[in-house]
Amino acid sequence: MVSIIGTGHSRFGRLPESFEDLIVTVAREALDESGIAPAEIGGIWLGHFNAGMVDDGFASSLAMAAHPDLRWTPATRVENACASGAAAIRGAMDAINAGRVRAALVIGAEKMTHLPTSGAAACLGRAAYQPEEAGQSFPAIFARFASAYADRFGDPTEAMAQIAAKNHANAMANPLAQMHKPLPVEFCREVSDKNPMIAAPLKVSDCSLVSDGAAALVLVADDLAKGREAVRIAAMEQVSDILPMSRRDLSVMEGPRRAIAAALAACGTGLDGIDFAEVHDCFTIAELMIYEAMGLAEPGQGARCLEDGTVMRGGALPVNLSGGLKAKGHPVGATGVSMHVLAARQLMGRAGEMQLTGARRGLIFNMGGAAVANYASVLEGAA
Amino acid sequence: MVSIIGTGHSRFGRLPESFEDLIVTVAREALDESGIAPAEIGGIWLGHFNAGMVDDGFASSLAMAAHPDLRWTPATRVENACASGAAAIRGAMDAINAGRVRAALVIGAEKMTHLPTSGAAACLGRAAYQPEEAGQSFPAIFARFASAYADRFGDPTEAMAQIAAKNHANAMANPLAQMHKPLPVEFCREVSDKNPMIAAPLKVSDCSLVSDGAAALVLVADDLAKGREAVRIAAMEQVSDILPMSRRDLSVMEGPRRAIAAALAACGTGLDGIDFAEVHDCFTIAELMIYEAMGLAEPGQGARCLEDGTVMRGGALPVNLSGGLKAKGHPVGATGVSMHVLAARQLMGRAGEMQLTGARRGLIFNMGGAAVANYASVLEGAA
Repeated sequence: MVSIIGTGHSRFGRLPESFEDLIVTVAREALDESGIAPAEIGGIWLGHFNAGMVDDGFASSLAMAAHPDLRWTPATRVENACASGAAAIRGAMDAINAGRVRAALVIGAEKMTHLPTSGAAACLGRAAYQPEEAGQSFPAIFARFASAYADRFGDPTEAMAQIAAKNHANAMANPLAQMHKPLPVEFCREVSDKNPMIAAPLKVSDCSLVSDGAAALVLVADDLAKGREAVRIAAMEQVSDILPMSRRDLSVMEGPRRAIAAALAACGTGLDGIDFAEVHDCFTIAELMIYEAMGLAEPGQGARCLEDGTVMRGGALPVNLSGGLKAKGHPVGATGVSMHVLAARQLMGRAGEMQLTGARRGLIFNMGGAAVANYASVLEGAA
Repeated sequence: MVSIIGTGHSRFGRLPESFEDLIVTVAREALDESGIAPAEIGGIWLGHFNAGMVDDGFASSLAMAAHPDLRWTPATRVENACASGAAAIRGAMDAINAGRVRAALVIGAEKMTHLPTSGAAACLGRAAYQPEEAGQSFPAIFARFASAYADRFGDPTEAMAQIAAKNHANAMANPLAQMHKPLPVEFCREVSDKNPMIAAPLKVSDCSLVSDGAAALVLVADDLAKGREAVRIAAMEQVSDILPMSRRDLSVMEGPRRAIAAALAACGTGLDGIDFAEVHDCFTIAELMIYEAMGLAEPGQGARCLEDGTVMRGGALPVNLSGGLKAKGHPVGATGVSMHVLAARQLMGRAGEMQLTGARRGLIFNMGGAAVANYASVLEGAA
């Protein structure tokens, strides 16, 4: 079993810090919080997408600037598009579970806002299958999910507008979020000058943000968790799909469904045992389809989770209390680590205004590409 | 313990295949050789540097095109510059040693020759510390090692010429090598029209090649190795250094020394227990300094290994019987996997004209960046 004993998290948004400084700052925060001496860290894992966004092409060792005692520590970058953060956690967990490492420093980081929007979009587009999908933006790619969903089940755009409004409302309680601006559902529903269509049926309000940011975790084996405030990673399951969208059913998210079902099974619980979820709302259609992948609703029925309040703050299973990628921000390599940091803080009772009273178990779902690299985790707080 | 039961290896050089086709071809070869059904593969790891060389920014799932049963298998890209291949092996080993995966498919791949030399150099340059070293080519970076070495110990260029000549001679026996052209030591010694200075004191003959290529391994836990022809990974140790060269002693390779010493210690042997080595001769000065990092010679005395024939074919510890990066080629993400494939084939007695009679144990050293990510492995054949 692997536990989280330290967390670090920058503000997300347009930040003045360099890529290296972002990494170093969150690494120090997580180390300080953990109480683990840097010399005890047995491995460093960096989740980072890049794909042209920064010139730092070999970034695994940058975290060593956080403390001189980190020199000589094995350091590795892991990349799985927007699930690079979860991939880094997975790598560290394997090393701990193999008995090779007792304490690991895991960082997710991305620097994006220095690029023009078109430049960031071009880099992100490299997470698609190039022989068939080169030049398509990610909004266009997720619009294909929305269209397939609409064709099979009917128009999802009202539910998408509600998801955007919910996540912006939730972000008001998250001081680290990029956006602190409520978006009324009426605004999200309508195409307007301030909410133009990006890739039909996705409007600006359906898209997550271009962000700078970083997050970090200190993960430890059981013996080092004893006597410390710790959150257990009760399960983490990865399911990867083939890359080409042309060969997949885009009306459902099958990889996410398999990953989430496997994670719940691995810790012997159902959704009724989960108190909250942080899921990968890179686009509002993704969050809607993830409700169905989670089993919160039958295929095509995800909108009911909004209508009956299930996923709202105060509902049976609030989703994205942090504001999600939609409003918290989405520095892609940082996102998976950020989800685990904020879920861990919920379970430690340190989530501030976001706090869900009595939260004991959280589900996390981080996704790379168009439902290609799928990671589901369950975190558990102290009993 | 983790064992190699299947290997795949493309020719290295200027290849017509796409990046995806290179991956798929070596994956199939390794799977076929292993006798493991694709459905039994529990995880895929891809070692790949990229940094702008191909547009495929999210390549972990590409190997799934090798067989339909690979769909849903967790797939992960790992990047540690020119040690990305070893980093992928390390990730797979951790998952196996953690009991999460019983059989893993590990691939290293890079596609470089479609770029003009300046373009490839710019991408490779991203493996340096950008705030201080941006715009320096890797020949210029390794020239700094050569200069520091010369300042402290005297001129290494005669030894460097001998290393180039040795590795080109060795590559004549490797049908997969990019270069099949002996380079006389006299040619390597002299600056000439055909051997110009690239970054003093490094001439063309001191530099490894720009190459396309891929290599693959099937790694398994003990229970799946039983009854199969298998090579054990007796040890694999990683030591990472800080990135900025300005803060390091460039007259020695301390990270490589630590990694190699740890790997030998982990399997309870000294160099006298090693029959051959494949080491990271991205530049001839690197191979020279690695002799010293291995403990084959005292600091500054590496040239003696050439003078007394130790590292030559037929010597006590032949180094780079494959031709090394210098003549076999250096598709950067593939290199670490290639080293393990060719060493495993030596230990299985399937190295063809490269075969070293009675080889039982091989040392591998794969390096990312300027001695930053350092991986040393020891492979053992059947007793």
